[in-house]
Amino acid sequence: MPVYRAPVRDHVFVINELIQFEKYAEALGYEDGDADTIAAVFEEAGRLADEVFFPINQSGDEEGCKLDNHVVTVPTGFAEAYKTYCEGGWAGLTADPNYGGQGMPQVLGVMVEEMFTAANHSLFLYMHLTHSAAHAMHGWASQELKDTYLEKLVSGEWTGTMNLTEPHAGTDLGMIRTKAEPNGDGTYSIEGTKIFITAGEHEMAENIVHLVLAKLPGAPEGTKGISLFVVPKFLPTEAGEPGERNQVFCQSIEHKMGIKGSATCVLNYDGAKGWLIGSENNGLRAMFTMMNSARLAVGLEGSGKAEIAYQNGVAYATDRIQGRAATGPVNSNKPADPIIVHADVRRMLMTQRAFSEGARALAGEIALNLDITFKSQDAEAKQVADDFVQLMTPVAKAFFTDEGFNAANATVQIFGGHGYIGEHGVEQYVRDCRISQLYEGTNGIQSMDLAGRKLSINGGRAVKTYLATADALLALHGEDAEMADFVKPMLPALESLKQATQWIMDNRAANPQNTGAAAVDYCRLFGIVALGLQWVKMARVCIDTLAAGTDEADFYQNKLVVARYYMARSLAEHSGLLERIETGADPIMALAAEAF
Amino acid sequence: MPVYRAPVRDHVFVINELIQFEKYAEALGYEDGDADTIAAVFEEAGRLADEVFFPINQSGDEEGCKLDNHVVTVPTGFAEAYKTYCEGGWAGLTADPNYGGQGMPQVLGVMVEEMFTAANHSLFLYMHLTHSAAHAMHGWASQELKDTYLEKLVSGEWTGTMNLTEPHAGTDLGMIRTKAEPNGDGTYSIEGTKIFITAGEHEMAENIVHLVLAKLPGAPEGTKGISLFVVPKFLPTEAGEPGERNQVFCQSIEHKMGIKGSATCVLNYDGAKGWLIGSENNGLRAMFTMMNSARLAVGLEGSGKAEIAYQNGVAYATDRIQGRAATGPVNSNKPADPIIVHADVRRMLMTQRAFSEGARALAGEIALNLDITFKSQDAEAKQVADDFVQLMTPVAKAFFTDEGFNAANATVQIFGGHGYIGEHGVEQYVRDCRISQLYEGTNGIQSMDLAGRKLSINGGRAVKTYLATADALLALHGEDAEMADFVKPMLPALESLKQATQWIMDNRAANPQNTGAAAVDYCRLFGIVALGLQWVKMARVCIDTLAAGTDEADFYQNKLVVARYYMARSLAEHSGLLERIETGADPIMALAAEAF
Repeated sequence: MPVYRAPVRDHVFVINELIQFEKYAEALGYEDGDADTIAAVFEEAGRLADEVFFPINQSGDEEGCKLDNHVVTVPTGFAEAYKTYCEGGWAGLTADPNYGGQGMPQVLGVMVEEMFTAANHSLFLYMHLTHSAAHAMHGWASQELKDTYLEKLVSGEWTGTMNLTEPHAGTDLGMIRTKAEPNGDGTYSIEGTKIFITAGEHEMAENIVHLVLAKLPGAPEGTKGISLFVVPKFLPTEAGEPGERNQVFCQSIEHKMGIKGSATCVLNYDGAKGWLIGSENNGLRAMFTMMNSARLAVGLEGSGKAEIAYQNGVAYATDRIQGRAATGPVNSNKPADPIIVHADVRRMLMTQRAFSEGARALAGEIALNLDITFKSQDAEAKQVADDFVQLMTPVAKAFFTDEGFNAANATVQIFGGHGYIGEHGVEQYVRDCRISQLYEGTNGIQSMDLAGRKLSINGGRAVKTYLATADALLALHGEDAEMADFVKPMLPALESLKQATQWIMDNRAANPQNTGAAAVDYCRLFGIVALGLQWVKMARVCIDTLAAGTDEADFYQNKLVVARYYMARSLAEHSGLLERIETGADPIMALAAEAF
Repeated sequence: MPVYRAPVRDHVFVINELIQFEKYAEALGYEDGDADTIAAVFEEAGRLADEVFFPINQSGDEEGCKLDNHVVTVPTGFAEAYKTYCEGGWAGLTADPNYGGQGMPQVLGVMVEEMFTAANHSLFLYMHLTHSAAHAMHGWASQELKDTYLEKLVSGEWTGTMNLTEPHAGTDLGMIRTKAEPNGDGTYSIEGTKIFITAGEHEMAENIVHLVLAKLPGAPEGTKGISLFVVPKFLPTEAGEPGERNQVFCQSIEHKMGIKGSATCVLNYDGAKGWLIGSENNGLRAMFTMMNSARLAVGLEGSGKAEIAYQNGVAYATDRIQGRAATGPVNSNKPADPIIVHADVRRMLMTQRAFSEGARALAGEIALNLDITFKSQDAEAKQVADDFVQLMTPVAKAFFTDEGFNAANATVQIFGGHGYIGEHGVEQYVRDCRISQLYEGTNGIQSMDLAGRKLSINGGRAVKTYLATADALLALHGEDAEMADFVKPMLPALESLKQATQWIMDNRAANPQNTGAAAVDYCRLFGIVALGLQWVKMARVCIDTLAAGTDEADFYQNKLVVARYYMARSLAEHSGLLERIETGADPIMALAAEAF
């Protein structure tokens, strides 16, 4: 049977010890940002993940969703779990208290998502987009719309969706065809078909709030002619309760490789009534507000999957006996040793752990910077934080999900043939994680966003600051002999990242394809170095804590062992990635399109 | 709709132009080894793959297998396809003419498997193990058993299975518990449970011939006490036809991640009658005869999957329009360009193609060496060939299936969200290919076989010869300016492989875990370099053919473009892999087992 236990202690380490959020809390206006409250919230979130989300993860995959006459049935237990989640106030954890939210910091809001999605990816998808929808409406909708919708979304009584994709338009949203005709009363009539709509239909909530991209009559071509509308499944009554059924129906649900408990819907809008959010033709901007937080959440699907994969890999490797240790029997009273004695099995487990802990630390730093972006009174600090979030969001989305997928596959490999069988529960992680590399912008698109847009805006200010900060970090600890194991291996890796960054900046003008040719390798290189820097910082905390004395010495010593593993092995790819980046677009583009 | 067209031209290139099998055919006693016959067989095999195997691949995945009262029902069309395959004589393509086989060379037998498995992995599994079973019986069974079984297996009237794994014993076969009690009449009574038995039960053939590992009473502990038995589903009558039902029944079939059209059975042996193959307690040796060819066949599942993934990636990338080329619109009369204009999409397609063509060439060379091993009269040539086969089999099994899996995933990535949906047919390749990394010995076990056993036997003779041959190849072409693009990048890569080999040899005594710690990275490094050497040889053929003049200039020029891509980008990993290998076991083993 699969296992999962939310890594509460490690979350507390990241937020309270590594980032020391307490130091920022007051200035950011968070009354409940003290270390004890943070630990208590992680504890509660962990319990919810362990006891409510995880037990229906495997059964949810087996059952899947069903569609009958426009009605979606979700797997057994999902509706009850959703109710428990809402009753606990989790739907509004970070939301504005003016609309019933708890006003907690992002360092909690973002980080608990790792637990929820690790425990049950499909179930959490019904919740996750509600946050994003509420966030977009909070930022862009009129007061009237906010008053109608936000409390319901924040409480989770109503859920939200994002409607971007159409059959012929995914990455290229400029081509969407869904139309919005003004009804003359301030409302619009929405006509069109949207696909891949996560949680597009279900009956766990009493209403569903669709945020829909569509084109007004005479709108400009391309992405500059897209507007955003809110289109509820049931039109709210004067009293704010679900009223008349709107003309939006689920036509079919997709049969997917994974996340089978999540209903992925084709929605037909047939003159459905909608309301404009923000100004005309400005819809993509509002949608992108939503997508930045959604992309980080998708990144956490990757790191969360690595965590659950690791835990199941450890459980199996400890239990399964097969063969003998290369150094001689460990279990001489049994016919074989547990497979954790084998170096190759350890290699897989250590890689998973070094990634998942490193990613958690980086996610924590991104979340902190989100808090600063949202709440700081200091304009310069806000700008630096926003630069960091903008730069690291594609890295977290793409690198975390690529590595999460690798981690999930490693656990199948540890299980051997048994990993391929559904009942052991681990092949599900591979299938579920595969979507995270695709949705919210494929990882190729994320990498292009990083290597193209993010290196260009403001003359590359964000990346320059990032690299200078990294230099400073290594210089600061470079003097300390105890830190040498961590600083020394990082120097050439950081050098590779700098050189790659410079190469892209220097070569994009000569051939615009150079950026795309380098993008995926560059994003991976960035991720590897970024996690390495987190391991440097974590090593510092561990060394200092051990020096000061602690009754959890094992915890900190083990982290140092994992840090050393990361430096010795996970970093090693950097030189090959740089070499590949510097070959440019020519070898890739040399074959004529018709010769494929 | 998914597409597949067997790459007949490329197979012909490998066997007739690159390897020039014709030169070897006569000395090896193959009358039908001329270039025209080889081309004709590939043509026919390709037709069978395209027209019979492939059309029922996706439907076979959707339908899966069913078990009812010990009877397995295979997907619609499988039985008819199996019949067509047998009627065409494919079951006995390379088999001994004394038993009805066609006696064709392995360069055909092995290479057509790539087409069959690419077109329909699940279907071909019903055939593939029959070869292996026949091969093992041919080598080890008594004349009486051969006379009873071989013609039936060679014609495909009966199918074969391999029964190794038990619930508690997979990699570690020394722990098997299945028992064989002598009945006193030369037969044995088999008792036990075997799992993961591919094609263990079905009704496509009139009988199933199980080759079963079991222990005789008082047999030595471990792998030295294992014997091999033939246990038919129906006991053959005097006339050699299926008679009384034997006591072996399918208890359940596995619900797997992929290869859903293949019945993976739990078989209960409840006093089933069996006959010993070979001598007592010598079963593993006979089984390994079977496994070497089976492992190469599994490798071809990987390279075949890369081929079909590539073809589907090209089809979608050429058809799907989304966004504009970085260098400006290509299709200005349409709202967007086909996605093949994007460098990142090209990168994925080129990687797939460079791998699949390189792997095909290496498979051809392994197959040639199998032919030499089986048929050469020259003892020294035979030994050199056997060394090569032994060395390269784990590389082909592990590296080809790892890269095949990556290639299948790349096509899902090219498709974006659509790739995740079953109806497009490409996520099936990911799920199907995943098994190839696990069965016939996991890729970790293959890597250990390479880095451990294969580098040790005969003082590392095989690898020393391999590296010296590689040196000679690069030296030979190093003088030629036209070959510089291919030879120059190979020099440091080959140097990395040499250094890694030396490191493993030098460090295995100091810490026996060093080999296991290095194994997977070493196997990958070996694969990358081995394919690079194939590209050097292919480049030579292309340059010479173009110089001599040809009306297929595009074919050869395109191959040179792909060769350059391989050198520029696929090779780049070598330095990082070497670096990782040289870190040894310490960082991997430093964490205490209980700290996981």
